[in-house]
Amino acid sequence: MNKFLKLILLSIAFLQLTHAQTVVNVVDWGILPGKDATLELNELIASLKGQENVIVNFPKGTYQFYPENAFEQYRAVTNHDNSLKRMAFPMFGLNGVTIEGNDSEFIFHGRLCPFIVEGGQNITLKNFSINWEIPFQAELKVIETNKAENSFTAKVTTNHKYKVKGEKIYFQHYNWEDPIGQNTPFDPETKSPIWDSRPYSFNISKAIATDVGNGQIKFKNAMKKLPPVGTVVVNHGPQGTNRLVQAIHLSNTKDTYIENVTIYAAGGMGLIAERCENIHLNAYKITSSEGRMSATRADATHFLGCKGLIKLENCLLEHMLDDGINVHGAYVKVAEYLGDNQFLCEISHWQQWGLIFAEPGDEVTLISRETVLPILKTSVKEIKILNEQKFLLTVNEVPEYMPKGLLSFENITWNPDLEMKNNIIRENRARSVLVTTKGKVTIENNYFSSQMHGILIEGDNNKWYESGGVTDITIKNNVFENIGYGDDTRYPLYISPLLRPEQRLGEDKYHYNINFINNKIKSFNGHLVYAKSVKGLVLKGNEIILDDTYPTGAQKTPLVFDYCENVSLEKNKFSGFSWPITIEKVDSDTNFKLKKNEGVSR
Amino acid sequence: MNKFLKLILLSIAFLQLTHAQTVVNVVDWGILPGKDATLELNELIASLKGQENVIVNFPKGTYQFYPENAFEQYRAVTNHDNSLKRMAFPMFGLNGVTIEGNDSEFIFHGRLCPFIVEGGQNITLKNFSINWEIPFQAELKVIETNKAENSFTAKVTTNHKYKVKGEKIYFQHYNWEDPIGQNTPFDPETKSPIWDSRPYSFNISKAIATDVGNGQIKFKNAMKKLPPVGTVVVNHGPQGTNRLVQAIHLSNTKDTYIENVTIYAAGGMGLIAERCENIHLNAYKITSSEGRMSATRADATHFLGCKGLIKLENCLLEHMLDDGINVHGAYVKVAEYLGDNQFLCEISHWQQWGLIFAEPGDEVTLISRETVLPILKTSVKEIKILNEQKFLLTVNEVPEYMPKGLLSFENITWNPDLEMKNNIIRENRARSVLVTTKGKVTIENNYFSSQMHGILIEGDNNKWYESGGVTDITIKNNVFENIGYGDDTRYPLYISPLLRPEQRLGEDKYHYNINFINNKIKSFNGHLVYAKSVKGLVLKGNEIILDDTYPTGAQKTPLVFDYCENVSLEKNKFSGFSWPITIEKVDSDTNFKLKKNEGVSR
Repeated sequence: MNKFLKLILLSIAFLQLTHAQTVVNVVDWGILPGKDATLELNELIASLKGQENVIVNFPKGTYQFYPENAFEQYRAVTNHDNSLKRMAFPMFGLNGVTIEGNDSEFIFHGRLCPFIVEGGQNITLKNFSINWEIPFQAELKVIETNKAENSFTAKVTTNHKYKVKGEKIYFQHYNWEDPIGQNTPFDPETKSPIWDSRPYSFNISKAIATDVGNGQIKFKNAMKKLPPVGTVVVNHGPQGTNRLVQAIHLSNTKDTYIENVTIYAAGGMGLIAERCENIHLNAYKITSSEGRMSATRADATHFLGCKGLIKLENCLLEHMLDDGINVHGAYVKVAEYLGDNQFLCEISHWQQWGLIFAEPGDEVTLISRETVLPILKTSVKEIKILNEQKFLLTVNEVPEYMPKGLLSFENITWNPDLEMKNNIIRENRARSVLVTTKGKVTIENNYFSSQMHGILIEGDNNKWYESGGVTDITIKNNVFENIGYGDDTRYPLYISPLLRPEQRLGEDKYHYNINFINNKIKSFNGHLVYAKSVKGLVLKGNEIILDDTYPTGAQKTPLVFDYCENVSLEKNKFSGFSWPITIEKVDSDTNFKLKKNEGVSR
Repeated sequence: MNKFLKLILLSIAFLQLTHAQTVVNVVDWGILPGKDATLELNELIASLKGQENVIVNFPKGTYQFYPENAFEQYRAVTNHDNSLKRMAFPMFGLNGVTIEGNDSEFIFHGRLCPFIVEGGQNITLKNFSINWEIPFQAELKVIETNKAENSFTAKVTTNHKYKVKGEKIYFQHYNWEDPIGQNTPFDPETKSPIWDSRPYSFNISKAIATDVGNGQIKFKNAMKKLPPVGTVVVNHGPQGTNRLVQAIHLSNTKDTYIENVTIYAAGGMGLIAERCENIHLNAYKITSSEGRMSATRADATHFLGCKGLIKLENCLLEHMLDDGINVHGAYVKVAEYLGDNQFLCEISHWQQWGLIFAEPGDEVTLISRETVLPILKTSVKEIKILNEQKFLLTVNEVPEYMPKGLLSFENITWNPDLEMKNNIIRENRARSVLVTTKGKVTIENNYFSSQMHGILIEGDNNKWYESGGVTDITIKNNVFENIGYGDDTRYPLYISPLLRPEQRLGEDKYHYNINFINNKIKSFNGHLVYAKSVKGLVLKGNEIILDDTYPTGAQKTPLVFDYCENVSLEKNKFSGFSWPITIEKVDSDTNFKLKKNEGVSR
């Protein structure tokens, strides 16, 4: 090819590129700071259908979005409360669209869902923040306690108006009011849930509220123990309506990239994704805004039944009222075998109702609900949704003899890989990481400091019905700092299927191949790992150092192995602990290696 | 044509007929009495899509339908509570289908909607009854009163389990419980709401319930006046959830025929129809079943924004807790004129949310919300639904100068004719007939005996936003018996737009051409007509006879004409009344004829 031809080809390529990069300036659609821009934004988003490689450009500013004229659709959103949802960015079936915020603030009002991305591919969200004028959680700062009358007086520190009616307090939101529902006490010193939060749960029925004027409310008989002055009681609102408004919902999408998006509030999770392929979060942040203790009402990120790669890097996830990340599938119950390879199935948890469990071609396993172990692997021939709870599932093979006991199905196809690097998860209620995917998991160079377990590898055919057994997990070079300050029973690494009393461990192990290597654990209790029903567990080169930020001492055994096989503990070093770092082994002697550990009692 | 040819043609016609009349026996689909047949029925109904002229034949029997496996869809149902609705007969887009019950009983359980007919045409429902195992209204029979402690003791006469918690009673339904909500006291002697029911409204917050055992509950401070022993207090349940389950919903259908269908219960209306063309009810019945006082929770029949002909004949509508029939349109509010012939509109009443107000091509009038009179007639160019409350309406013409005041729109195209012959409407809470359609209305040879007005011709841009002014109504040869026994302010014929204090009568009249002829009125108060803003009102040949079933006497003027024009009162005969039958005229002298009436004071 001569130079001239090359130049022509390059020019064509450049033209294609510039053609590919259509920029839509939101100002041209009447979207401006200082007014409700929802109707115009809905119209802009609708106009993108059928276009490709479009950048929707928001000049830097503070934009306001209200629910009154917003596009609405009945939506089932897993782990949330299903409802008619109004939305600001209804991104349905779009392809190659970038929302470029240029560091704008998007301020939402009322029950308006910011982003719903349904279907489509190559969606990028970048450089903006999401916040609400009135947050979903009312926060009350304890300013005085009175032991004699078992009361404390608190000040509402969020911008909620309130009323005391019939001895109960009600917080005014955009167009509804919330009584006190679930709640979490935060310690403003640590910016985290308070140490040993158990006695500070609000007793909704017994508590007597009195408006004592001057923006202060007195609560009598509200908690088992009077909270320390300064504690901020964060009110989640009542179950059933406190997960109506997630910030970002991805559903059936492919290739989503989210970069430098900060979420300060949401009436649900920050990001909830279901049945998506490839999601990449870079510098995605959850944190509380000025003057508030808490951020999102629920998890920072949550992935159900995804595939491809889920990648989180450079993220800061803090002050959310639930887990940092949760990656899992769903166990659905078999209600009845109808014959002819057809099963009447039931979605197990009410906050999964409406979930797309599988589609034709997906591989599924039939599972014993007694042992939570697979019976038969097959694939889906047909699926017919009856209602949000029930569906008919026709598979290509069934066991020669259908087992008599209770059965479930698990989707095998939709299990993503997970890569987490250089993230911080801290100062939140609940866990840093929950993961039960059969994909390859790498968790490296992160910092974790959550109120419950650090990394929970569960598999639960019991409560939330989050499947399933893992096969390949590497957790290395992370820092775990004072994991489990909510009570004294938590571990940096906790691995166990969650079993009902009527469920039992089966012949095979539930989890496989978990490597926990070269992590640094700062700990008040010396807990390292609790492992149950694992085959292939390597704990190597971890350093566990006493930290006295919280009261020190251990209620539980620091190293527990129950029904495990092929366990290797090598070169782990416990230092500074004044109590014995013991190992509890139950039925775990098969190929159990213990080598060159320091500070571990034999 | 020779005989042979005729025979051949007849044979072909017969073959076509038999071909056309495919009969599906439900037994072949596994639909049998004595089991939950909902899943099988859903599948049968789905299979009818694309077929024509099918009879779905139920051998006579008692069939059971449960909600667990039922088809579900989020549905906006006007005058009901919108929700995810589960349905037994989801008849979506079917053509030429007959449901032949052969006098079967269809028994429903829980919140399962029996019939939802959406789109399609030529649907026939015949020869079956609809009932619920547990009715939607709990009924309490008063068995003892105690004046000293202002209490009454009642027995639950419906098959509801109940519990008293915190001094309030809760009735157990299929999978929910209802506190006492709205309620209506019935008199078992008359099988109707009690005479002058006003003092017997249940005071939900003040009433103290005590379970006194033996299936009896004592209520203290429950009503202004202690109810007579024997009264049956019918509990509607709480607003917001007591209109979730209509029996039959017709929406966007054409040519529906319902014959010999009896509805004994519903958690909403018996029949609600919206945007339908031609509905014919023959021997459609609403009545209470053995041992129950009340039937449907709301109206027996209700039609919003229909066209063509609505025909009711040989119907018995009794014991429902709301009106017998209501035929009207909807006033929608203009929230903002956006320019370019486009209006941001708002559906006015929350129980109309989700209504299809209009479609392109429909004629609409722009209305002053001050005078409720039309400003401009135009047609719809485009409509875009934003959410259940709001839509964008683009019309073909707008006034040269947009009026400054509040505006509404009314749909002119969707106004049906109404023909009612040989029907009985009685023993219900509320009215016999409400009608505000611009179509031709004939109401002939019916019997009416309801607790409020007999025939209410209203037009309401105020509360329920039921449009609009009428143009051609003939009411003749009907019997009205003791209309308005709920209090002393009702009339056999009441005509008036319902105005807010800030609304006023405009220059033109609101209603036109109403003829009330040769009716027989048995009356305890001598009330005949209240008319406001009518042009063209003929009252002729009516016979009004004193009836002493209820306490006699009149609190209101029997004949009231306010801002009417072209009124003719001729040959009406009042007999037996011991008090003066007076006429009150306000600004109604233009062409007012009074001729040959008997028993009327001058």
